[in-house]
Amino acid sequence: MYNRILESLENHYEEMVEIRRYLHQHPELSFKEVQTANYIKSFYEKLGVEVRGNVGGNGVVAKIYGGKPGKTVALRADFDALPIHDQKDVPYKSLVPGVMHACGHDGHTATLLVLAKVLHENREELEGNYVMIHQHAEEYAPGGAVSMIQDGCLNGVDVIFGTHLWATEPTGKIQYRVGPIMAASDRFVIKIQGRGGHGAAPHTTKDSIVIASQLVMNLQQIVSRRVNPIDSAVVTVGSFVADNAFNVIADSAKLIGTVRTFNEKVRSDIEAEIEKVTKGTCYSSDSSYEYTFERGYPAVVNHKEETDFLAQIAESVPEVTTVEETEPHMGGEDFAYYLQKVPGTFFFTGAKPQGVETAYPHHHPKFDINEKAMLIAAKTLGLAALNYQKVNTNSNVLV
Amino acid sequence: MYNRILESLENHYEEMVEIRRYLHQHPELSFKEVQTANYIKSFYEKLGVEVRGNVGGNGVVAKIYGGKPGKTVALRADFDALPIHDQKDVPYKSLVPGVMHACGHDGHTATLLVLAKVLHENREELEGNYVMIHQHAEEYAPGGAVSMIQDGCLNGVDVIFGTHLWATEPTGKIQYRVGPIMAASDRFVIKIQGRGGHGAAPHTTKDSIVIASQLVMNLQQIVSRRVNPIDSAVVTVGSFVADNAFNVIADSAKLIGTVRTFNEKVRSDIEAEIEKVTKGTCYSSDSSYEYTFERGYPAVVNHKEETDFLAQIAESVPEVTTVEETEPHMGGEDFAYYLQKVPGTFFFTGAKPQGVETAYPHHHPKFDINEKAMLIAAKTLGLAALNYQKVNTNSNVLV
Amino acid sequence: MYNRILESLENHYEEMVEIRRYLHQHPELSFKEVQTANYIKSFYEKLGVEVRGNVGGNGVVAKIYGGKPGKTVALRADFDALPIHDQKDVPYKSLVPGVMHACGHDGHTATLLVLAKVLHENREELEGNYVMIHQHAEEYAPGGAVSMIQDGCLNGVDVIFGTHLWATEPTGKIQYRVGPIMAASDRFVIKIQGRGGHGAAPHTTKDSIVIASQLVMNLQQIVSRRVNPIDSAVVTVGSFVADNAFNVIADSAKLIGTVRTFNEKVRSDIEAEIEKVTKGTCYSSDSSYEYTFERGYPAVVNHKEETDFLAQIAESVPEVTTVEETEPHMGGEDFAYYLQKVPGTFFFTGAKPQGVETAYPHHHPKFDINEKAMLIAAKTLGLAALNYQKVNTNSNVLV
Amino acid sequence: MYNRILESLENHYEEMVEIRRYLHQHPELSFKEVQTANYIKSFYEKLGVEVRGNVGGNGVVAKIYGGKPGKTVALRADFDALPIHDQKDVPYKSLVPGVMHACGHDGHTATLLVLAKVLHENREELEGNYVMIHQHAEEYAPGGAVSMIQDGCLNGVDVIFGTHLWATEPTGKIQYRVGPIMAASDRFVIKIQGRGGHGAAPHTTKDSIVIASQLVMNLQQIVSRRVNPIDSAVVTVGSFVADNAFNVIADSAKLIGTVRTFNEKVRSDIEAEIEKVTKGTCYSSDSSYEYTFERGYPAVVNHKEETDFLAQIAESVPEVTTVEETEPHMGGEDFAYYLQKVPGTFFFTGAKPQGVETAYPHHHPKFDINEKAMLIAAKTLGLAALNYQKVNTNSNVLV
Repeated sequence: MYNRILESLENHYEEMVEIRRYLHQHPELSFKEVQTANYIKSFYEKLGVEVRGNVGGNGVVAKIYGGKPGKTVALRADFDALPIHDQKDVPYKSLVPGVMHACGHDGHTATLLVLAKVLHENREELEGNYVMIHQHAEEYAPGGAVSMIQDGCLNGVDVIFGTHLWATEPTGKIQYRVGPIMAASDRFVIKIQGRGGHGAAPHTTKDSIVIASQLVMNLQQIVSRRVNPIDSAVVTVGSFVADNAFNVIADSAKLIGTVRTFNEKVRSDIEAEIEKVTKGTCYSSDSSYEYTFERGYPAVVNHKEETDFLAQIAESVPEVTTVEETEPHMGGEDFAYYLQKVPGTFFFTGAKPQGVETAYPHHHPKFDINEKAMLIAAKTLGLAALNYQKVNTNSNVLV
Repeated sequence: MYNRILESLENHYEEMVEIRRYLHQHPELSFKEVQTANYIKSFYEKLGVEVRGNVGGNGVVAKIYGGKPGKTVALRADFDALPIHDQKDVPYKSLVPGVMHACGHDGHTATLLVLAKVLHENREELEGNYVMIHQHAEEYAPGGAVSMIQDGCLNGVDVIFGTHLWATEPTGKIQYRVGPIMAASDRFVIKIQGRGGHGAAPHTTKDSIVIASQLVMNLQQIVSRRVNPIDSAVVTVGSFVADNAFNVIADSAKLIGTVRTFNEKVRSDIEAEIEKVTKGTCYSSDSSYEYTFERGYPAVVNHKEETDFLAQIAESVPEVTTVEETEPHMGGEDFAYYLQKVPGTFFFTGAKPQGVETAYPHHHPKFDINEKAMLIAAKTLGLAALNYQKVNTNSNVLV
Repeated sequence: MYNRILESLENHYEEMVEIRRYLHQHPELSFKEVQTANYIKSFYEKLGVEVRGNVGGNGVVAKIYGGKPGKTVALRADFDALPIHDQKDVPYKSLVPGVMHACGHDGHTATLLVLAKVLHENREELEGNYVMIHQHAEEYAPGGAVSMIQDGCLNGVDVIFGTHLWATEPTGKIQYRVGPIMAASDRFVIKIQGRGGHGAAPHTTKDSIVIASQLVMNLQQIVSRRVNPIDSAVVTVGSFVADNAFNVIADSAKLIGTVRTFNEKVRSDIEAEIEKVTKGTCYSSDSSYEYTFERGYPAVVNHKEETDFLAQIAESVPEVTTVEETEPHMGGEDFAYYLQKVPGTFFFTGAKPQGVETAYPHHHPKFDINEKAMLIAAKTLGLAALNYQKVNTNSNVLV
Repeated sequence: MYNRILESLENHYEEMVEIRRYLHQHPELSFKEVQTANYIKSFYEKLGVEVRGNVGGNGVVAKIYGGKPGKTVALRADFDALPIHDQKDVPYKSLVPGVMHACGHDGHTATLLVLAKVLHENREELEGNYVMIHQHAEEYAPGGAVSMIQDGCLNGVDVIFGTHLWATEPTGKIQYRVGPIMAASDRFVIKIQGRGGHGAAPHTTKDSIVIASQLVMNLQQIVSRRVNPIDSAVVTVGSFVADNAFNVIADSAKLIGTVRTFNEKVRSDIEAEIEKVTKGTCYSSDSSYEYTFERGYPAVVNHKEETDFLAQIAESVPEVTTVEETEPHMGGEDFAYYLQKVPGTFFFTGAKPQGVETAYPHHHPKFDINEKAMLIAAKTLGLAALNYQKVNTNSNVLV
């Protein structure tokens, strides 16, 4: 049966490309992707697949029931686009000025729709059930995952798989990682309130530039001394502004930065340490501060069994030439939230366009993918979903 | 004779006020004070006093020859105004929108013109000669003093006296100081060029915010460790700008600041030390920098004999109630240049308006003076000029 | 056959304990372990096993030839002791004052000798060959591994396994890790040479305490900004000494510290970065420095295939109750050098004494092990060696 | 009469030298100078001068009553020696091993004794009274001045003069200064208590070396930003000790330093600022500290009128070739306490030995003075005391 499904996916490759190109021409921004949601919903309705729209916003969830008992496997694809103006010179270029599928979510959606179609065609023979999660708003915090989960998209789900087409890795490569694969990304703002004055009379002031500079130096110790060296963490001050005349002492200074972590404890610790260092530094100077720490998505932490399983599955996909462990990426993904609820794994499917040495990176106005990668993604996700029925989830999948 | 001159100054007080108010209504910006210069020149021409215009720009120099041999004493008054909009509610308010005599130079000019008139009236009995230096452009570097000196205004001059009406000190007070009385004020700019990048990947960057913060901290040592504690010095970073997104590492950062000193050696040392610290800090981070140090006016350094002499003279002016040594001011004055050429002293004449507890400070849109202070300034300058004829300048004036 | 070997190991357990206790009573320091080497060599000679002494110093290498063709598997045990005075109250306490097997090397040796004996007894049926590497001088850099390798101990070897009995982990647990499992540990010394002087005259000096303090702060950036956040690294200044009278400015200051890394590139980079930061900091202060960086052992980096293999094997050892991935240890081990030459893995065998809640840590004067752990280690090493004959080393062991 | 007194001093020069050399051979340490006190007391008793011993300890106070009414003028000389072993090769070398008059107090005493003798001889013609304060224990805090004042040595005194023979300035020079001439010198100790641990596990520790280094950097801001640039101040950390193994993180670190100031407000502010900076720095690191600030002598602050008067007097001493204003010295002197109670001035009398280019500095084992300087000191003190009778202390002495 597996071979028939793989073959069927190959036969539907042209449709996959058509869907992707249609979506590429009609991109919609995060939280505004209404037409795209309708498109997806109609696709399932035409097939006669059970589908629910407006899941936690613009989300769409379809469900395929296999003819035999088994586990419920969720597959997720996101479908929002970015506020970037398409500068590619291709027939399927975006028709919406200033909006573009510059991250491959069009490909994710086409992959999942066609895979769903093929599974639906073979539903009688399938064990278990298959939940297709089409998620809106991945690009823009707070994202669509949380609200879709709240709206029940994971109900009854035993495992979830998701992939990201990755244009800068060769087509044919699958990258996996047990544990953290994408970082938690948070934002902080520190406003130092000293007391301004004449540049020639420092003793009458509290020099906010000196205080904030001292703070930047002191913050270095968080990573160098206070985080377990085994844990990865970044504390970056990206913006330092105290913009005054040359002969004035700064009344206030504003620092804005980001924190990247892979571990919730480290994340919380750093949030607290930044405040501790700030408070102490300000105490030293008799000055005050305002501190805000805004949490972005948490780290995407892959489950070991499901990841090892996925890596084995990937080896068996004919078009896959390389399966390798990747270092964690420091970017964020709200797939993180699904993995906090159910086992599963998130992996990268290489999608470098043919014939280019260096692909345009994600979020670039000339970003594009090798559409063949969609077929590889569909096969990998499909085989993972089907084979997972055989996994004894109470013991190690590899034994 | 001295008493007659003091009396004559009192009799001309109304004229002094009239002149001052006329100038107050017709202020002109630095280097554009053509009408004011004409006004001054005409004043002398009407009296029949030898006068030269366009001295080193808009400067005016008049010369009164006494009937008896003696020294040549210069007295200086500046006459430019400031780009400030007058917000006082008085009949003599500025008639020029956005321009205002907010530093008392109108009063300096009225004082010197009337004093010159009285000296001229008594010229037959006077020993020595009297040079009235009406200087343009004190408020705006490079100032008028340098060019007037180059144009000969100090030729043959033995000594120079100048005063600044000072609205925040009580009328009746004269403040003097041997040695530095106003600071050298310089400006520096440091641009740190690191290498920007993604906030999550510091190891691929040279973090300009960290480098510049480290530099700010390191610069503190110049004053705390490298300048003789006996010497006063200030190194202030007034502006620190590296304005980026929160998740980006700064490509560059710009620091702008000021240095204040009273001693040329310290000034030069600090100029060099800032670069040394910057260079070392950048070396540590494999980054580069651009550094400029722009010199403003040097410190006003009063000569001891002439200052002690002036302090004694001030005690003898009837309206003077207090003569006190002042701490150096950190502001700048191009009177500094005259004192680099000839002996002399610069002092402050208290000019706080009557009935106010706290006067508006200099450069404030509601700044005003007590006009009586002009009479005190005229008497002090006049007595200093006349008595200086008796000073044996080869030995200590006090013996 | 495997069962027979496991059974045979069990039957020789008493001998294992005897050997271990004999060695425990007769410890010898690193590079001086002559009697121990003789003891080991004699053991093999009595069995009639091919053995070579004085390998790269005091090392001993024995070789067992199986009756069937196969791979050559090396097993390593170290046998030196520590300059610690045994404070245990047991019959097998060290008989040498001030010298003690406080790290379990006696147990390693007993384990390997008995395992060799059993393999030798079954040699006719074995595939492949077995190299027993008894290494001297693990505790003291430069260690014995390098010279034994130079003297040929790895010649013809296809794979190597080694274990460390670990007294603070429960007996029954095996800990493995793909990639770095023990850190590279290096030592650095920085001497700052400023210029001393009177505490009241900082401008005549170059304050070494300020320079060194600045350096300590600047060094924090190496880990926080210059090392890939994915890589673990530690830069610690453990000693800061500038010991003067309170009213003197320090002429020099001395910093001593350690660097821990798991990656040779990071290690070299940090070595260079420390000097760069030091040089720049000294430039800023017109001072000089001496810098030495002394390399200890490199990181122990386990090979993926062999480690995954070992983890699977460990699961099959009857007495093993837990097989878990461990976080890397920051301590050092010269097993690192073997893994730079041939594939293999190094793992920890839990050896916590029975009935204690918290075991005395390694290098403690009351350190002891649960001798049963030797049997577990022998079985795990034995099964790994025998099963490795079946591994297709050209593809993933797990497929 | 003045000439007679000057002549008489010259005639007694040999006696002055004798006394000085006797004392030089018989030095006594601070608070143990009993024989020296007896010597001084006997000197006065033989003359028939009113003298009191054991004043506030080993102090001796003599009083000469002039024949005419007038002011009471105090002159002070200290008489303790130092724990230094005399290494000069002269006949009058110290006879006490390890104790030496290496600061010229022997000369101060000889000067004052002979001056007292001459004044006593001329007492009938003198106006006013003369109090000779022979002070013990200047070299060792808390010094003898405070207790002598408490014991009444300044009762009835109108003015006080004191001098220090200064071996590194040419004989013939008198140095004066209005305001602060010698600094307040205080000592502080800061112990940082972090939490030690293994050098490879910083996250389990509070790294005292990093905390203390950060503190040293932060302390720089006290002088650079928080003290009025017009005020001189020094904050020096002279000792930084955290002496551990290279691979250990420091549990604690100890800083010892000195603060020098000329102004009591600045002194108190710095005492408080050091604690504020320390507390904030420790807060940032969740660590604790112990802080002690031990006050030494306050600044010697000369009164303006008496100093100007003394400078004029000095000009009239025949052997004085130079009278100059000196920069403040950063060393301490408990003469400070007298000047907190009565007007007066402290000045330096150049005493460089003849024929040497660079004199041995004070507190050097080969220190010596030009004894002729004692005569200059005696004449200057004598003329100051006598002329002060004519000063109208309610107005400026110079008018």
